[in-house]
Amino acid sequence: MQAVQSTHPHGHGKHIYRSLFVAVVAVLTLGLLSVNQALAAKREFNMTIEEVRIQVAPDLKYNVFAFDGQVPGPLIHVKQGDEVTVHVTNNTSLPHTIHWHGFYQTDNWRNDGVPGVTQPGPGIQPGDTYTYHWIAEKPGTMWYHCHVNVNEHAEIRGMWGPIVVDPKHPSELDKSVTKDVIMMLSSWESKFADKFGTGGKPTDVADYFSMNAKSFPLTQPIRVKKGDVLRIRFIGAGESLHAIHSHGHDMLVAYKDGLQLKDPYPVDTVLVYPGSHNDVIMHMNNSGRFIMHDHIDPHSTNNGKYPGGAITIIEYTDSNPKDDWYVWNGKKYDPDFFYSESMKKGYGLFDHDAFKGEPLTRRHHHRGR
Amino acid sequence: MQAVQSTHPHGHGKHIYRSLFVAVVAVLTLGLLSVNQALAAKREFNMTIEEVRIQVAPDLKYNVFAFDGQVPGPLIHVKQGDEVTVHVTNNTSLPHTIHWHGFYQTDNWRNDGVPGVTQPGPGIQPGDTYTYHWIAEKPGTMWYHCHVNVNEHAEIRGMWGPIVVDPKHPSELDKSVTKDVIMMLSSWESKFADKFGTGGKPTDVADYFSMNAKSFPLTQPIRVKKGDVLRIRFIGAGESLHAIHSHGHDMLVAYKDGLQLKDPYPVDTVLVYPGSHNDVIMHMNNSGRFIMHDHIDPHSTNNGKYPGGAITIIEYTDSNPKDDWYVWNGKKYDPDFFYSESMKKGYGLFDHDAFKGEPLTRRHHHRGR
Amino acid sequence: MQAVQSTHPHGHGKHIYRSLFVAVVAVLTLGLLSVNQALAAKREFNMTIEEVRIQVAPDLKYNVFAFDGQVPGPLIHVKQGDEVTVHVTNNTSLPHTIHWHGFYQTDNWRNDGVPGVTQPGPGIQPGDTYTYHWIAEKPGTMWYHCHVNVNEHAEIRGMWGPIVVDPKHPSELDKSVTKDVIMMLSSWESKFADKFGTGGKPTDVADYFSMNAKSFPLTQPIRVKKGDVLRIRFIGAGESLHAIHSHGHDMLVAYKDGLQLKDPYPVDTVLVYPGSHNDVIMHMNNSGRFIMHDHIDPHSTNNGKYPGGAITIIEYTDSNPKDDWYVWNGKKYDPDFFYSESMKKGYGLFDHDAFKGEPLTRRHHHRGR
Repeated sequence: MQAVQSTHPHGHGKHIYRSLFVAVVAVLTLGLLSVNQALAAKREFNMTIEEVRIQVAPDLKYNVFAFDGQVPGPLIHVKQGDEVTVHVTNNTSLPHTIHWHGFYQTDNWRNDGVPGVTQPGPGIQPGDTYTYHWIAEKPGTMWYHCHVNVNEHAEIRGMWGPIVVDPKHPSELDKSVTKDVIMMLSSWESKFADKFGTGGKPTDVADYFSMNAKSFPLTQPIRVKKGDVLRIRFIGAGESLHAIHSHGHDMLVAYKDGLQLKDPYPVDTVLVYPGSHNDVIMHMNNSGRFIMHDHIDPHSTNNGKYPGGAITIIEYTDSNPKDDWYVWNGKKYDPDFFYSESMKKGYGLFDHDAFKGEPLTRRHHHRGR
Repeated sequence: MQAVQSTHPHGHGKHIYRSLFVAVVAVLTLGLLSVNQALAAKREFNMTIEEVRIQVAPDLKYNVFAFDGQVPGPLIHVKQGDEVTVHVTNNTSLPHTIHWHGFYQTDNWRNDGVPGVTQPGPGIQPGDTYTYHWIAEKPGTMWYHCHVNVNEHAEIRGMWGPIVVDPKHPSELDKSVTKDVIMMLSSWESKFADKFGTGGKPTDVADYFSMNAKSFPLTQPIRVKKGDVLRIRFIGAGESLHAIHSHGHDMLVAYKDGLQLKDPYPVDTVLVYPGSHNDVIMHMNNSGRFIMHDHIDPHSTNNGKYPGGAITIIEYTDSNPKDDWYVWNGKKYDPDFFYSESMKKGYGLFDHDAFKGEPLTRRHHHRGR
Repeated sequence: MQAVQSTHPHGHGKHIYRSLFVAVVAVLTLGLLSVNQALAAKREFNMTIEEVRIQVAPDLKYNVFAFDGQVPGPLIHVKQGDEVTVHVTNNTSLPHTIHWHGFYQTDNWRNDGVPGVTQPGPGIQPGDTYTYHWIAEKPGTMWYHCHVNVNEHAEIRGMWGPIVVDPKHPSELDKSVTKDVIMMLSSWESKFADKFGTGGKPTDVADYFSMNAKSFPLTQPIRVKKGDVLRIRFIGAGESLHAIHSHGHDMLVAYKDGLQLKDPYPVDTVLVYPGSHNDVIMHMNNSGRFIMHDHIDPHSTNNGKYPGGAITIIEYTDSNPKDDWYVWNGKKYDPDFFYSESMKKGYGLFDHDAFKGEPLTRRHHHRGR
């Protein structure tokens, strides 16, 4: 085959162009950086930690250390590059910290929230306010949780909440999403519901299971319209594994711990393990009413009574007939149970009243160890 | 570089050819669709649910609700696109349903088999017959199970069986398979063996583990000849996780919940979690005798006694010498234990006598809750 | 477009060149094979199994069957293709075998180490020496463990150690690594610490968790310098699952059971399950002090007391200030705790004194079943 070569100049003149080119690139880069810096907002939030009592299941109330008095904690929604400051006031009777799970904390490790490693132990003392400052370097689904006595505070006292960091450069998949769902999965040990400072030992057994701290039937439907593209942000917040099974739809495993996979793959059962924050994409193209639940069978019960635990139902608005035998007939709908409404509100910190606990009565204010 | 452009006609004549082309494609497409529809068989099956007693381990008999009186239930083998009708007659003393796990049920959600969500609760009453109708849209390894009180019926009463949907357009990998193996993994709580209506609470602990409802040594070998390409269809049917380890061979993780991965990858230990139905491909190129077992150590015991539980042995027919110390010396071979024979019989529903239970005596016919 | 075809000679002369070419290739291939064979070293090792008592946690000593008297066992480091001979002398009071986990044992299945399947049961009797011989066909992170009564010997008596097989043809990723870390994860049942022949039943519950057989604070830091490329070789050696979470860094999941993935993907939490031997790559570009721990909350405790269990801390040598509240202030550093020093020593078998147990006193020498 005929080979054709282009001719390039190889004289001194070339270096002049090269230098010019480098200069132009440098100026443009600096310019873009300044724009970026201008876009990187400074966001400042206040959170408290409260001792309250939440209703997990119809027959289970639980004493928790609750961020802003709610479980899960408030949504923090920021953009990649944002500089975030959070002032945390501990209104409980025990020390706590906040670890910002998934964040790199580049050159900023003292804000990582681990007592005895990145900040003095035992953590933020009762009555104290502590300030964390970090940059949202990594995009995607993140979360925060206490790092003091994690086997109690994080595992069974509800000390966790979601963070969503919108990417600077959203992918086509990011942009295709029409509805955001945040699902924090965890479990509870009913034996220790009333007494702070107890539970969470390796020999203690969880007997209640929840999505966003509620067990079925206190959970809420995922209500969609045909054509919706759902992004479910699964967060393994407790100590249990959860094998979430979607009826009628595949889930595209697309993001692992924030970052998009090169080749997403479809499944109908996804293993959500503690610490993971993996997202799936679901194309809502199958009108009807479909259950979605933890397939580890005891996890779809309340202490052994089925149905319960980590169950929700996907309801298509165009196909949800009023069958008198439907378990959620007449159910009062909370559109923000999976943070879908909060996610529409732009950037900020968003409380949700339905997650708030009730004040502790003297009867239920116990403390162990 | 020299640019070479071809010349295309841009006159009105072109549109005539274009229209003709479109018409021809349309006719061909319609023709293929009709052929497809002609190929999409209508298949009608009857199943019953029986109360019987199966032998799980040498020292464990178990009361089960058994599809066609056997555990696992009969194999349903159909082709993608087939229209399937199943009449289920409940001959037990408690209500049940059947969920067709992995199927989309497009515009057909009332056949999804979930009591109180897609059909009236509590399900198919004792003595009643109920008919499910669905189309096998998604290809691959699927399964069915009861969706009433799943923590008892599906978890410890054996209410599950396999479905294989052959793809309309098999891949090269599909076509390379010479031997099909279906392995349904589950666990048992010996304490509740005798009493229907009990067990499966989060605090109850499994102490027996099985492949296709048998614990070693009551399981069977996977007997292969050198050169075989094995497809193992793992189904997580119970509440336990299983880390299946293959000695002497890698397993190519190739299908997730029915669908082929773009880039299969080899492992020697695969995590089978509840609800998952993932297939691996194994090239049988290593003559000998190799154990294959659950690497979660207690799962390869019968109530703590090793060897037991979820263990099988791969036996090459060209290399399985009669060592007098071989644990399966003189073992009576059942070639259909992993459904390999049934899978050769074309489409239909296939019972297997060796999975059948014995009638319940009065002594063992208890009922709790 | 203009089609250009090159002209090839199609006469008889071509066949002569072809034959000559084939001959040359054959000679070169044989030559390379001989070189390879010359490079494939024969390596011969001796190991003993000893009954000793190791310190797992500050409040937990444990009776173990220890390879060379240590837990984990000595590192075996060889090159792909090497022929390995291991003479094992059983100085304990119970029978054992060694299974070489991950190795193919092509045409060599009798060296697979499974009692009753590949060698006579019940295994190597007390006082006996047994010789295993195998070729390191598969490259990557491997391990060895006893296959007798795995639910006791492997699960809670420490009968496991690491093997690293350097690939014949290292990848760019392989070559980029500057520091090797081997992390064997397992768990312990304190109730059975003193009595051989007990524990490991499905109903027994683990209450201590460890990296390389030590629970925090007896574990050691992973000490790195900025710019290091870390390869962590995770091995699921016990019966528990571990969700290892790295603070401040992503982990590139790059190797599954020895073999490199085509498309590694980053996570910050990786599920290590029993039997798995998966490696991650970490770019150490974030100076500071970062905890790395099992995110299954009770696993980061010692019998419920946090912090404990499967916790380590990544310490950058350029940024580890002497905060008086740092939990590991003044910690005596063992640079070989994660085998990083042994991995630098070339090929061989490497003991490590810090892993050795103490002789059993009469008081602690019990035997059950």
